[in-house]
Amino acid sequence: MANSKYAYVRNFELPDPLLPGCFLVCRIDGHSFHRFSEEHAFTKPNDDRALQLMDHVAKDLMSEFKDIVLAFGESDEFSFLLRKSTNLYNRRNAKILSTLTSYFTSCYVFHWPRYFPDTPLRYPPSFDGRIVLYPDEHAIRDYFAWRQADTHINNLYNTVFWALAQQGGQTTTEAHATLRGTVSAQKHEMLFQRFKINYNELPARFRKGSVVVREKVRSCKQWLLDLNEPEDAHDADDLPEPIKPKTSEIARIPFKASQRDKSKTTIEVMHCDIIGDEFWDARPHLLAR
Amino acid sequence: MANSKYAYVRNFELPDPLLPGCFLVCRIDGHSFHRFSEEHAFTKPNDDRALQLMDHVAKDLMSEFKDIVLAFGESDEFSFLLRKSTNLYNRRNAKILSTLTSYFTSCYVFHWPRYFPDTPLRYPPSFDGRIVLYPDEHAIRDYFAWRQADTHINNLYNTVFWALAQQGGQTTTEAHATLRGTVSAQKHEMLFQRFKINYNELPARFRKGSVVVREKVRSCKQWLLDLNEPEDAHDADDLPEPIKPKTSEIARIPFKASQRDKSKTTIEVMHCDIIGDEFWDARPHLLAR
Amino acid sequence: MANSKYAYVRNFELPDPLLPGCFLVCRIDGHSFHRFSEEHAFTKPNDDRALQLMDHVAKDLMSEFKDIVLAFGESDEFSFLLRKSTNLYNRRNAKILSTLTSYFTSCYVFHWPRYFPDTPLRYPPSFDGRIVLYPDEHAIRDYFAWRQADTHINNLYNTVFWALAQQGGQTTTEAHATLRGTVSAQKHEMLFQRFKINYNELPARFRKGSVVVREKVRSCKQWLLDLNEPEDAHDADDLPEPIKPKTSEIARIPFKASQRDKSKTTIEVMHCDIIGDEFWDARPHLLAR
Amino acid sequence: MANSKYAYVRNFELPDPLLPGCFLVCRIDGHSFHRFSEEHAFTKPNDDRALQLMDHVAKDLMSEFKDIVLAFGESDEFSFLLRKSTNLYNRRNAKILSTLTSYFTSCYVFHWPRYFPDTPLRYPPSFDGRIVLYPDEHAIRDYFAWRQADTHINNLYNTVFWALAQQGGQTTTEAHATLRGTVSAQKHEMLFQRFKINYNELPARFRKGSVVVREKVRSCKQWLLDLNEPEDAHDADDLPEPIKPKTSEIARIPFKASQRDKSKTTIEVMHCDIIGDEFWDARPHLLAR
Repeated sequence: MANSKYAYVRNFELPDPLLPGCFLVCRIDGHSFHRFSEEHAFTKPNDDRALQLMDHVAKDLMSEFKDIVLAFGESDEFSFLLRKSTNLYNRRNAKILSTLTSYFTSCYVFHWPRYFPDTPLRYPPSFDGRIVLYPDEHAIRDYFAWRQADTHINNLYNTVFWALAQQGGQTTTEAHATLRGTVSAQKHEMLFQRFKINYNELPARFRKGSVVVREKVRSCKQWLLDLNEPEDAHDADDLPEPIKPKTSEIARIPFKASQRDKSKTTIEVMHCDIIGDEFWDARPHLLAR
Repeated sequence: MANSKYAYVRNFELPDPLLPGCFLVCRIDGHSFHRFSEEHAFTKPNDDRALQLMDHVAKDLMSEFKDIVLAFGESDEFSFLLRKSTNLYNRRNAKILSTLTSYFTSCYVFHWPRYFPDTPLRYPPSFDGRIVLYPDEHAIRDYFAWRQADTHINNLYNTVFWALAQQGGQTTTEAHATLRGTVSAQKHEMLFQRFKINYNELPARFRKGSVVVREKVRSCKQWLLDLNEPEDAHDADDLPEPIKPKTSEIARIPFKASQRDKSKTTIEVMHCDIIGDEFWDARPHLLAR
Repeated sequence: MANSKYAYVRNFELPDPLLPGCFLVCRIDGHSFHRFSEEHAFTKPNDDRALQLMDHVAKDLMSEFKDIVLAFGESDEFSFLLRKSTNLYNRRNAKILSTLTSYFTSCYVFHWPRYFPDTPLRYPPSFDGRIVLYPDEHAIRDYFAWRQADTHINNLYNTVFWALAQQGGQTTTEAHATLRGTVSAQKHEMLFQRFKINYNELPARFRKGSVVVREKVRSCKQWLLDLNEPEDAHDADDLPEPIKPKTSEIARIPFKASQRDKSKTTIEVMHCDIIGDEFWDARPHLLAR
Repeated sequence: MANSKYAYVRNFELPDPLLPGCFLVCRIDGHSFHRFSEEHAFTKPNDDRALQLMDHVAKDLMSEFKDIVLAFGESDEFSFLLRKSTNLYNRRNAKILSTLTSYFTSCYVFHWPRYFPDTPLRYPPSFDGRIVLYPDEHAIRDYFAWRQADTHINNLYNTVFWALAQQGGQTTTEAHATLRGTVSAQKHEMLFQRFKINYNELPARFRKGSVVVREKVRSCKQWLLDLNEPEDAHDADDLPEPIKPKTSEIARIPFKASQRDKSKTTIEVMHCDIIGDEFWDARPHLLAR
């Protein structure tokens, strides 16, 4: 890029470093996905293929960018948590934002045929993104609680709305009118009375969103070493339950991060509660440096 | 997004408006395209398919975002000029940057099979982007001169380099050594003497890069009206030459922007000089508001 | 400042360069000057001593910071224009802002006794400041027009208001009520009919605010040289009128900036119109680089 | 400020809110105080009057701005800590920065005659300022440790330097040469051997700098109430020692912040260690919200 006469124009490129010592959240949202979901005939209120595609993309991002320790997704959005000491691209705002959003988009289009084998893309979908800084664990907890509460509220509404429209014979205008002013309990009741739907038995993916988390795992060697280290021992009760994460709603209890720093990690998709303490208490590494 | 208890976390989202009255340049660059071009067997020094794909993507962006009036591309990068009075997304930096970069990426993956029908994508390519503000026409002219001068310097170097490597039997290390310290004239001479290549006869696309420009065109009705308006008349010499833009190196002379404000626009790809005045003098609308 | 163990805290100091190629306007405003003017018994509606003190401070700033080419003040505020190519403190926002505001404040307190010899300061006055970037001459012209129009509007209102209160026997509440909804012509009429005040004969300082400008002046040597350079000659009509700037309302016509680049400068206080073209046409150096 | 035609220029004033949830440190530094201290014949290496003036100014700032909970000063600089939940001026960067720097400057000039009754100001002194965000207590502790370590290093150096120059008959160039490469212990030794100065017996103000802290105090009424509230009682040992803060080097132990939220506060100047835990452990309110 060095041709001296014009190169002064680079002086207009101003630095944009993000404050050190803060967690980074990068939230990526689908652009005009209302139209996109209609053009590609997404199932309403939730399209399982579209959600699984989003989860796949989120896992790809976390495989590529090791400083992302957690992601949460619902509908056409995903939030990524980068650890507070990350030095990715020297914490340059535009570089991180544009790179993550670009790679997210690329993976989405790239993997589309796998999840929608019979529905070719009619046009290129796009996303926007933003990076928000959070100075402490408390705010991060509340950020993810905010998104999961939003998932619940939206999904409950949409579930009743589409039941009214698809099975109840209402127009969308009528369905909105029916729901106006109703509280949560009334929506549950409406679902059960009119449509025999027990909301709590719907798939956790729809109700809880997707939690994609970098988990610490122990190697076989470490496992054996641990067995021979009684001072470091823990009861069998502490061991992770053999729960399949994808269908589990309750948070797994992995080994404490402090025990093994050199431990490998895996990326797991869950649909569990992240508003309460259990999920976070079991994973102190998420909010460590 | 309204669930009051946690919604305070939105307070951490800070405004990021771009200064009004400045031109915006959004430059998008391929991420690790050295590797990407090798993995997908790009022709060296220039892969015509890859360049045409980039041009296609640039045109898509300009179709989607009307405030982009000009773009310039070379290799794996493209710069987009947004008119200085643009109010796209209320000039929010992250929103504009992430949306443009995302849509660029999406189009790239989406159109890939059309330009590389026999080369499936091996993995999702990505791009980074940045937005730079320029306060005046002079700086904008120099910005685009900077990029086109860069195109020339890089392409001349790469053309000799790959001639040495592909036809001259040199290793890449030897080729770099051969070129070390040579000036432009020596490279031209080397190409001609050793490889019978007249650099100036190579495709303009390689030597000049791609200029994608929103041109004003007159409707038939306006054309007829003009014929009957002698005070507004101009000699036939003023009419645009029927030059095919894609192969033309010299800038077309379109009608003056001031003549017809309601005129429609088309998006044209050219490979002409944009360092001199001719291109810009013929298109005053590019640097107007 | 180098003691390595803790020095990492400097990493939290983020760069804040101002965009190159833009004019800088630094506007400094009195903090709680409503109270301050009452505590120090300022004459209403205008205190000549206070305004002269402000002008003195503005001149001091321009003597100290050569890149300030123009200032405009009214009431308890002053705006300073820095030329667009200024590299003062490498264009660091906080450094420029805090230094200018601090020096302004210091000069105000320092010179106070000279303008208020019988009124000791009862407490330390303070100011706030902000820096705004303007990309072009047009916006700068409008910025200063905005401030001078504001001066006119405020001063006309205040002049009638205080006439009603001081001479008309109205309470301040009544005076506000009397003025509610009146347009400019009605205020002029009210002043003249009730109080025999011809608004246009009030001091220009009150009606136009203070324009502090860096003027180019010719040295004696240059003057003589010019006399012997007929090709560079100009009519005697071009010479500056011997108008005393402080009482003049019309803009002086100094020599054109382009004639002598090495010319010295002086700082002049005027009370002239800066909304029209005359002032600016006579001083092209103000909006040059 | 409402005159519609030009008021659009306000659109160039961009928002500059500081990230919520972070501590703010505003550091204010003397501008060219090397020259200023010479022009006003400051005693070297430390001028007690100048330091006491700085302390007075710092107290004034803390009286005026209740969200400043702590300040630390040395030489011609002072750092102010604003509690992390402060909403001063809606956390607008330029507003806070310019106001604090301005008021600091104003107080400095205002109080000058009190500390330098026989030395009139020869010209207006000025300061620059900056605001730095720190996301957590750890970084704040390190920030203040950084400044106090700096105080120590500078003062030790300056003490020996001026002893060499004033009593040792060295030129300043020779004195710098004598000190080049010496470590702390050597400087202590040099002071003691050559000049009979025991560094640790020099005034704490010089060695430790000035710590200005907002202390919680109990009213008489609360004191009596506490005597009757045995469940809330504490041993007499917990009571603050009747140490005169100005000469004390060790940190006082005030009541815990949590005990009495409605307690009044006083502003105290101390010269104690703030690198260790004692100072901070005794004042948990400083790093609370």
